[in-house]
Amino acid sequence: AGASLDLDRSARCGFPEVVYGEGKTAETIIEIFQRQRAAGQSCLATRVDAEKGAVVAAEFADAHYNPVGRTVRLGHAKEKSKGKVGLITAGSSDLPVAEEARETLLWMNVDVTTIHDVGVAGPHRLPERIGEFADCDAVIVVAGMEGALPSVVGGYLACPVIATPTSVGYGASFGGVAALLGMLNSCASNVTVVNIDAGFRAAYNAGIIATRRRR
Amino acid sequence: AGASLDLDRSARCGFPEVVYGEGKTAETIIEIFQRQRAAGQSCLATRVDAEKGAVVAAEFADAHYNPVGRTVRLGHAKEKSKGKVGLITAGSSDLPVAEEARETLLWMNVDVTTIHDVGVAGPHRLPERIGEFADCDAVIVVAGMEGALPSVVGGYLACPVIATPTSVGYGASFGGVAALLGMLNSCASNVTVVNIDAGFRAAYNAGIIATRRRR
Amino acid sequence: AGASLDLDRSARCGFPEVVYGEGKTAETIIEIFQRQRAAGQSCLATRVDAEKGAVVAAEFADAHYNPVGRTVRLGHAKEKSKGKVGLITAGSSDLPVAEEARETLLWMNVDVTTIHDVGVAGPHRLPERIGEFADCDAVIVVAGMEGALPSVVGGYLACPVIATPTSVGYGASFGGVAALLGMLNSCASNVTVVNIDAGFRAAYNAGIIATRRRR
Amino acid sequence: AGASLDLDRSARCGFPEVVYGEGKTAETIIEIFQRQRAAGQSCLATRVDAEKGAVVAAEFADAHYNPVGRTVRLGHAKEKSKGKVGLITAGSSDLPVAEEARETLLWMNVDVTTIHDVGVAGPHRLPERIGEFADCDAVIVVAGMEGALPSVVGGYLACPVIATPTSVGYGASFGGVAALLGMLNSCASNVTVVNIDAGFRAAYNAGIIATRRRR
Amino acid sequence: AGASLDLDRSARCGFPEVVYGEGKTAETIIEIFQRQRAAGQSCLATRVDAEKGAVVAAEFADAHYNPVGRTVRLGHAKEKSKGKVGLITAGSSDLPVAEEARETLLWMNVDVTTIHDVGVAGPHRLPERIGEFADCDAVIVVAGMEGALPSVVGGYLACPVIATPTSVGYGASFGGVAALLGMLNSCASNVTVVNIDAGFRAAYNAGIIATRRRR
Amino acid sequence: AGASLDLDRSARCGFPEVVYGEGKTAETIIEIFQRQRAAGQSCLATRVDAEKGAVVAAEFADAHYNPVGRTVRLGHAKEKSKGKVGLITAGSSDLPVAEEARETLLWMNVDVTTIHDVGVAGPHRLPERIGEFADCDAVIVVAGMEGALPSVVGGYLACPVIATPTSVGYGASFGGVAALLGMLNSCASNVTVVNIDAGFRAAYNAGIIATRRRR
Amino acid sequence: AGASLDLDRSARCGFPEVVYGEGKTAETIIEIFQRQRAAGQSCLATRVDAEKGAVVAAEFADAHYNPVGRTVRLGHAKEKSKGKVGLITAGSSDLPVAEEARETLLWMNVDVTTIHDVGVAGPHRLPERIGEFADCDAVIVVAGMEGALPSVVGGYLACPVIATPTSVGYGASFGGVAALLGMLNSCASNVTVVNIDAGFRAAYNAGIIATRRRR
Amino acid sequence: AGASLDLDRSARCGFPEVVYGEGKTAETIIEIFQRQRAAGQSCLATRVDAEKGAVVAAEFADAHYNPVGRTVRLGHAKEKSKGKVGLITAGSSDLPVAEEARETLLWMNVDVTTIHDVGVAGPHRLPERIGEFADCDAVIVVAGMEGALPSVVGGYLACPVIATPTSVGYGASFGGVAALLGMLNSCASNVTVVNIDAGFRAAYNAGIIATRRRR
Ligand SMILES: Nc1ncnc2c1ncn2[C@@H]1O[C@H](COP(=O)(O)O)[C@@H](O)[C@H]1O
Ligand SMILES: Nc1ncnc2c1ncn2[C@@H]1O[C@H](COP(=O)(O)O)[C@@H](O)[C@H]1O
Ligand SMILES: Nc1ncnc2c1ncn2[C@@H]1O[C@H](COP(=O)(O)O)[C@@H](O)[C@H]1O
Ligand SMILES: Nc1ncnc2c1ncn2[C@@H]1O[C@H](COP(=O)(O)O)[C@@H](O)[C@H]1O
Ligand SMILES: [Mg+2]
Ligand SMILES: [Mg+2]
Ligand SMILES: [Mg+2]
Ligand SMILES: [Mg+2]
Ligand SMILES: [Mg+2]
Ligand SMILES: [Mg+2]
Ligand SMILES: [Mg+2]
Ligand SMILES: [Mg+2]
Repeated sequence: AGASLDLDRSARCGFPEVVYGEGKTAETIIEIFQRQRAAGQSCLATRVDAEKGAVVAAEFADAHYNPVGRTVRLGHAKEKSKGKVGLITAGSSDLPVAEEARETLLWMNVDVTTIHDVGVAGPHRLPERIGEFADCDAVIVVAGMEGALPSVVGGYLACPVIATPTSVGYGASFGGVAALLGMLNSCASNVTVVNIDAGFRAAYNAGIIATRRRR
Repeated sequence: AGASLDLDRSARCGFPEVVYGEGKTAETIIEIFQRQRAAGQSCLATRVDAEKGAVVAAEFADAHYNPVGRTVRLGHAKEKSKGKVGLITAGSSDLPVAEEARETLLWMNVDVTTIHDVGVAGPHRLPERIGEFADCDAVIVVAGMEGALPSVVGGYLACPVIATPTSVGYGASFGGVAALLGMLNSCASNVTVVNIDAGFRAAYNAGIIATRRRR
Repeated sequence: AGASLDLDRSARCGFPEVVYGEGKTAETIIEIFQRQRAAGQSCLATRVDAEKGAVVAAEFADAHYNPVGRTVRLGHAKEKSKGKVGLITAGSSDLPVAEEARETLLWMNVDVTTIHDVGVAGPHRLPERIGEFADCDAVIVVAGMEGALPSVVGGYLACPVIATPTSVGYGASFGGVAALLGMLNSCASNVTVVNIDAGFRAAYNAGIIATRRRR
Repeated sequence: AGASLDLDRSARCGFPEVVYGEGKTAETIIEIFQRQRAAGQSCLATRVDAEKGAVVAAEFADAHYNPVGRTVRLGHAKEKSKGKVGLITAGSSDLPVAEEARETLLWMNVDVTTIHDVGVAGPHRLPERIGEFADCDAVIVVAGMEGALPSVVGGYLACPVIATPTSVGYGASFGGVAALLGMLNSCASNVTVVNIDAGFRAAYNAGIIATRRRR
Repeated sequence: AGASLDLDRSARCGFPEVVYGEGKTAETIIEIFQRQRAAGQSCLATRVDAEKGAVVAAEFADAHYNPVGRTVRLGHAKEKSKGKVGLITAGSSDLPVAEEARETLLWMNVDVTTIHDVGVAGPHRLPERIGEFADCDAVIVVAGMEGALPSVVGGYLACPVIATPTSVGYGASFGGVAALLGMLNSCASNVTVVNIDAGFRAAYNAGIIATRRRR
Repeated sequence: AGASLDLDRSARCGFPEVVYGEGKTAETIIEIFQRQRAAGQSCLATRVDAEKGAVVAAEFADAHYNPVGRTVRLGHAKEKSKGKVGLITAGSSDLPVAEEARETLLWMNVDVTTIHDVGVAGPHRLPERIGEFADCDAVIVVAGMEGALPSVVGGYLACPVIATPTSVGYGASFGGVAALLGMLNSCASNVTVVNIDAGFRAAYNAGIIATRRRR
Repeated sequence: AGASLDLDRSARCGFPEVVYGEGKTAETIIEIFQRQRAAGQSCLATRVDAEKGAVVAAEFADAHYNPVGRTVRLGHAKEKSKGKVGLITAGSSDLPVAEEARETLLWMNVDVTTIHDVGVAGPHRLPERIGEFADCDAVIVVAGMEGALPSVVGGYLACPVIATPTSVGYGASFGGVAALLGMLNSCASNVTVVNIDAGFRAAYNAGIIATRRRR
Repeated sequence: AGASLDLDRSARCGFPEVVYGEGKTAETIIEIFQRQRAAGQSCLATRVDAEKGAVVAAEFADAHYNPVGRTVRLGHAKEKSKGKVGLITAGSSDLPVAEEARETLLWMNVDVTTIHDVGVAGPHRLPERIGEFADCDAVIVVAGMEGALPSVVGGYLACPVIATPTSVGYGASFGGVAALLGMLNSCASNVTVVNIDAGFRAAYNAGIIATRRRR
């Protein structure tokens, strides 16, 4: 009751609908997963807190609940990967958003290369490791506070950079607005932006760039 | 004086630096173009008003000034296209931003398919023509006012959609903020966003997705 | 003490005052309902949480508490309906606001036709069912996030559309501001807007359009 | 070039598309009017400055340019009116927005009753004249600064009130934002709101309420 | 420790310092009251929650804790009043701010005349009772939501009106910002404004206008 | 046409309506002045630019146009003054707002004592001269940028302080918003606030406090 | 896991990295401290709540937890001080931010001179004691509400003033935004600003000014 | 008239008052300069447009007008420099703000080392040249758009960094707000911030850090 599941989306867009768990009961999530399974579709829910996650995970033998990323994913890792996406965070507090992104990429069957905590105040850290991202199809950069990292990453790489602002910070960070504005005004040309804390959205876009390129 | 041209960018990022013409004199733009030519790089300047555009265009035999998009581009169309990008506008007032994007894609040697003025208030117009975008590598959607069009386009297509808010509108459009927020909160998964009126940025990202896919 | 009940409103405006329950005790609500009953007026309270709702409902034999819409309504459904209003939501999280609207319309003795979860990212869903709203006197569209749905509905219909933004969303949705701005800037001509989460206000306006038309 | 005219709107929505003149040339407006005429549709353009207005008016024998409301309308007043709408302004500076509304209602063939400059600081003025609006189908209230007038009007009348904030004011009026917020938070139940300075939008909604009621 | 009490203020400004209780312990408030008493000064603390209020009140025989206004006041009502201030609220939810104001006026030994819940949506209520305020030295008007009431009161009276916005409301009331902006843009000339929920500030200013006039 | 002059205001509120010149023609201002004169009322118009001011002044033998304050006032200084108001500015750029205030006080027949350019960065300047304001009925403090001066003045004086923010400043002064917020949050108890650049409003309130006290 | 400690910062910038405790577990903080100790670096963590503070403090013999400033510092006070910094607060509620600053200065081995609660509404308090700051290398001024104190302090002193806005206040203080804007627009030349509640940042900058001067 | 020159500031704060030219006439600036000269003080005016600058410069034999920085400075360069300050810009459009800063430092008799156009999108440019700033007493970083450069510079250096946001950019740069927020939220510890476009303020603070250190 109350949900018009878009089961046709997989055919239209390449991937099925992902469940936005905020404000849904565990029962609703389970019911949607069952209808998706019945239609032969893979299943992912985001914004699922620990309590709801336990109820959903108990229902499906192959459920994986990620307590940091707050996601539930059904099914095991596939064998052959399609594409490779980089995932870089500015600080260790950005981890929850990065984990939501990483789970989404696993669901899309895309390989992920990660480095954490290489924010711009320690400017020597990024150049030392940027080479690991040379063959990525796209790179996600997750940062709160001033959100400067995507510009620097963008300056080193040729591939698309998906900038993901987080609500990490205090005072004039305004819950991620400072980082969001920094990223929208990035002086690097290869940067596009998603909503604050939108790990799923960043990963979905990096994922379709990667899978459509490797097809 | 005052400019540290980043001539290495072409090697690092795949495309040379593009000149942001706002606040630069025609002379400065000409000088940068000459240094880029000397280094064998292609040349594009954005945000160039008609007066400055005429001065720059007079200096180079193969200059093309686009008065709607306010760009100067040097060089002729290349023979073999790399990739295909769609370009859709919500209203006819969004044309200047769309033209900045189209010129950038021509400079990147990418094919462009365009439809104008298919905003959501005439909802039958888009579905009739969406088929023309089925084989695009990426689609740019340019819209002011409520910025709803990228969500609808995103719902029909599997490829990445680059949402480009414009400052078209009045009152509570706040110079493009309403459209920007609409796009950041899009409920379609395949939408990323660039700055208000950032036709160049949208095109650059769509262009690298396309050229890197077709390589 | 502290309340100057506007008992004359029914004569002046066609419907009695509705109690805004936020910050009022159950006792205050009961007292107002008793004075309204004594004056022969119908009774509705909004923004009543479950605990207060139980106390109020225990006092009146014909009370109906709606836990999703958080309303208390006295009295049974009337026989002959006056007018017909459509009620459309973009996502299932918009249900509480939609239920506040639906209860208000029942209190006004107006028929309601509803579809849920037909947001623009699944753009084929709305056109399939839009025919059900052809004979409505007015349609309420409830949406959070980018708030694009009222524009699309407005483009299909000739009747007034009351756009109702909700606080559903995260990050740059800013508690419903993104949806509100989207709706204020709608490019469909037949759209007016109410406050964020103002299900009552949307329904009241749709309801008077309907009842005054059918009189 | 650049315009996909929505000629089907008249059938779908009851009235043809109205031209938003901002950013369009006189030539574009003339061309659109010619295509609409050829399709047997009535013609109205808003946001047309005096210079463009003269060019457009010179092209059509029955053109009427309103220099205060900045509209061009083709065709003569019809004989039999459909519906009656009230139009009230708070101050004399709100006249341009009121005139845009009045021209739109004439184009819709709806009668208009007007009073100007009855803002709340002279609170005795409105009650003396409110009786003139008793038989209106809807009332438009246009106000800048604190935007309080729609609440007071709403408190006196049973019909829908369309609140129209204007950018009149200075300092913390923020170009109409103060008035807009005042109207969105109105404590009168029968008030819905349109964008700042949106005279056309207010009139269109009042007009369809009126014409659909009198049909 | 940490507090430099301004004991000279009474001589300089006519009234002693009032304790802002937010973020202070009950012990700190008690200590300040003791130092003020020792200096022969009257005592008032605002923003004191019930728990702290009980502790402070237990320490002083003549303490009065007001649970709605969240104030502690020491001392009994004085015999002869200085001045008369009116206090009007728009809705019953504005009571806590009005009570903070009323307690402050009692502490200043000023008479208060009060009416509650006469917001503009029931526009007949205020004129019926405005005569009660004819001989006031100043009038405080407390209102949330659209904050329109001070303009209307100001239009009826010759004395200064102190407009006090409250955080009552939801959605686009933005915690009192809508009311604050409405009041700053009031079209009545005799209105000045204080901070959101600043009952004390409103009362202090009304109080000095009254006491200095009656001296 | 378009103006409902509130000629009754003088009886109701003690002073006649003041003409807000913005957006009115010189002819309209002249017509209003003539009607006010005929009714035996004194005349003042604010926000009148030099060009309009010359036209209005040419029409009345006793007109005084103030080019800094942008006001037109009719009539000569009265003999016996009612009340005394202080007027203090933080910087010399605040002069236009101060002059609008001073002209308003002259029109109200109130004495004015003025000091300019005593902002807080030269903190020794104010205490040296604060004694001149000891017998004022009220003091107006006009300041842009950080708007700190009213708090300091308020700390020295017992009378009401009307804080008047100005749009003087740049960058994060946001056209007077920084000063406005500073004043609303003033830690001095005797400060109320008016709109940005509202010299008239500040003076009107100081003026009624003064005249009603001296009556 | 998840942290790339910047151990080289001490060599590059003069002081080691300080741990931002928000969102880190006690275990993570302990692990970082151990790695820093092993590298011979001094240790400080900020934003550590009482519970986490106890766990960290239990692990190190020379740990000092400051419950007001919410910091953990390892090691004893050094003998010979480098530099002298002043620390002034406007109100007693600003203490937590001041204590975070004071702990940071102790960690940097810098002397601190402090006065509390000398806000501008008691304007005689500051001049009496300003002499104590004459030989400071830099002065930190901590203030919420209108944030006016740094301007006044700046006007008395020749050394750099680091203005630190706090989130103390209510209503239109907007969590420290009013104070921040006041400080950014300060009319005193020797004032720079840090983020809201950023006691650490203020102290670090004052500390490097002091230690580099005394070297 | 209207100016209370603070001639004592030089003794109190180390440097005389600097004239803020915005809104002052050339005559006023000349008069202030003459009074300062007479008192043996050095002279600087900022925000002086070309026209006014010519008038002021014509009056003093040793005047220097800087058309990019829009400053007038009297007097010749002094022989022995006090201190050294670095000045770094992100883009060539930031030059006007940098020139205002450079002129201020010359007036303070402080040496300046400059590099322009080393924004973060060309991340290899800064490290190549950062060594030139190793012996600076303080470094000013001027940047618009996302304002990321100060964090990177701060990460390389031990001295204080004064971050100066500029209004360079478009769309969501909001006239420098994005850069300002980025800098306030910088994750580098040695960064403090001044107002948008505040070249003078940045230079004054860097200058006093330098001169007080070298004394
Ligand atoms: N219209 C534009 N919007 C955003 N960035 C641009 C635009 N045009 C050029 N750019 C970028 O701006 C940078 C050049 O800035 P500048 O050094 O000021 O010329 C380059 O990184 C370009 O890729
Ligand atoms: N959910 C709601 N949103 C907006 N207004 C409401 C709501 N519920 C009741 N009202 C209105 O609030 C007013 C009653 O406020 P009160 O006097 O505080 O009970 C009446 O004018 C109602 O029509
Ligand atoms: N500068 C001003 N600022 C605010 N209100 C003003 C100003 N000048 C006149 N007014 C008020 O504006 C109203 C007149 O508005 P109007 O009817 O448009 O002339 C009167 O209530 C005046 O008291
Ligand atoms: N309270 C604070 N405010 C701002 N920055 C801080 C604070 N405490 C530590 N830092 C800085 O935050 C960075 C460490 O962040 P993280 O890697 O998340 O621990 C270092 O650059 C510190 O200098
Ligand atoms: Mg770190
Ligand atoms: Mg169109
Ligand atoms: Mg759904
Ligand atoms: Mg009027
Ligand atoms: Mg009520
Ligand atoms: Mg001065
Ligand atoms: Mg205190
Ligand atoms: Mg550059």
